[in-house]
Amino acid sequence: MQSTTQAVQIAIEELAKLPGIGRKTAQRLVFFLLKRSEGQIEALSRSLINLKKTVHFCEICFNITETSPCAICTSHNRNHKQICVVEEPNDVYAIERTNEYRGLYHVLGGCLSPLDGVGPDQLKIRELLQRLEKGVEEVILATNANAEGEATAIYLNKLMQSFGLQITRIARGIPMGGDLEYADEMTLSRALSERVKM
Amino acid sequence: MQSTTQAVQIAIEELAKLPGIGRKTAQRLVFFLLKRSEGQIEALSRSLINLKKTVHFCEICFNITETSPCAICTSHNRNHKQICVVEEPNDVYAIERTNEYRGLYHVLGGCLSPLDGVGPDQLKIRELLQRLEKGVEEVILATNANAEGEATAIYLNKLMQSFGLQITRIARGIPMGGDLEYADEMTLSRALSERVKM
Repeated sequence: MQSTTQAVQIAIEELAKLPGIGRKTAQRLVFFLLKRSEGQIEALSRSLINLKKTVHFCEICFNITETSPCAICTSHNRNHKQICVVEEPNDVYAIERTNEYRGLYHVLGGCLSPLDGVGPDQLKIRELLQRLEKGVEEVILATNANAEGEATAIYLNKLMQSFGLQITRIARGIPMGGDLEYADEMTLSRALSERVKM
Repeated sequence: MQSTTQAVQIAIEELAKLPGIGRKTAQRLVFFLLKRSEGQIEALSRSLINLKKTVHFCEICFNITETSPCAICTSHNRNHKQICVVEEPNDVYAIERTNEYRGLYHVLGGCLSPLDGVGPDQLKIRELLQRLEKGVEEVILATNANAEGEATAIYLNKLMQSFGLQITRIARGIPMGGDLEYADEMTLSRALSERVKM
């Protein structure tokens, strides 16, 4: 197309590869960046390159970290007998923000999804089982509340039965501020069957 | 926060500066990028840096270009007696995609918006008036159909009265595929008052 330059086209294509960003949004971002100074664009680009250069995966919990083992795994202030199993590093980030949990984590790196070719061998399940032999008392399964996350939790629960430890699953129910009227049937039936004493 | 690294924080902050991207989206993008290869991230970063290095503004129409004057301004296949005035380079891109218009463009670099401190001197209006002296026969005002765009079009129309050329404004009306039922009053009243003979 004559009306735009090759550099703009390439930048649009690269941005459109990101999740949730289509060609229209990518185009808007590019025209926004063109108005910014060279320094501002370089700061953005450098931050992205640094991501991959300085961020590694913790050899114990597979969370992202700059030093391996990570700060959580080496902390003396945390309960090393409790492991919370999550799918992705951003789940760790979400749980840490609650400031409620003081145990360790284990990041699976995804969830069981046979259609996408993700089986037990693609996840850090073997590494999780190895950790269980070192005095762990409770495993909290905090995989997502969708079909794949539930399947992964059920699979892990079965696998860990022989270890003789407490296995728990995070509660499903009505979210805070949620109206019963707008809750879907699955959520509401879960909230009913998993009701707790007041 | 202990659960994430400094490089991740910086990347999230840089991405969140982009329009339409909040902290949550920025976070999702960063975790997506962490899963990509170093080469893929570098391709993205390089494309952004190249943007500013290779993209300039055409000295005639102020559209973005790699060579100045731009390919449209120097083309012999286009009608040099017709100038379409738009707000931003992406508007040129949008009109070019219709494959309907064969004249030249003039990119104002925004629209009149006193509240944002954008007056006539911040736009390429003087440069537009200079171009009109070189045998231009028609100016098409294609600023956006919002309050600022309309004000800019009215201002330019008044300014160009003395040049004795045809000044037109792109049609406002019901968009293709639009239901009358869902059209707002302004659009519908415009569509009625600017009705054309079938």
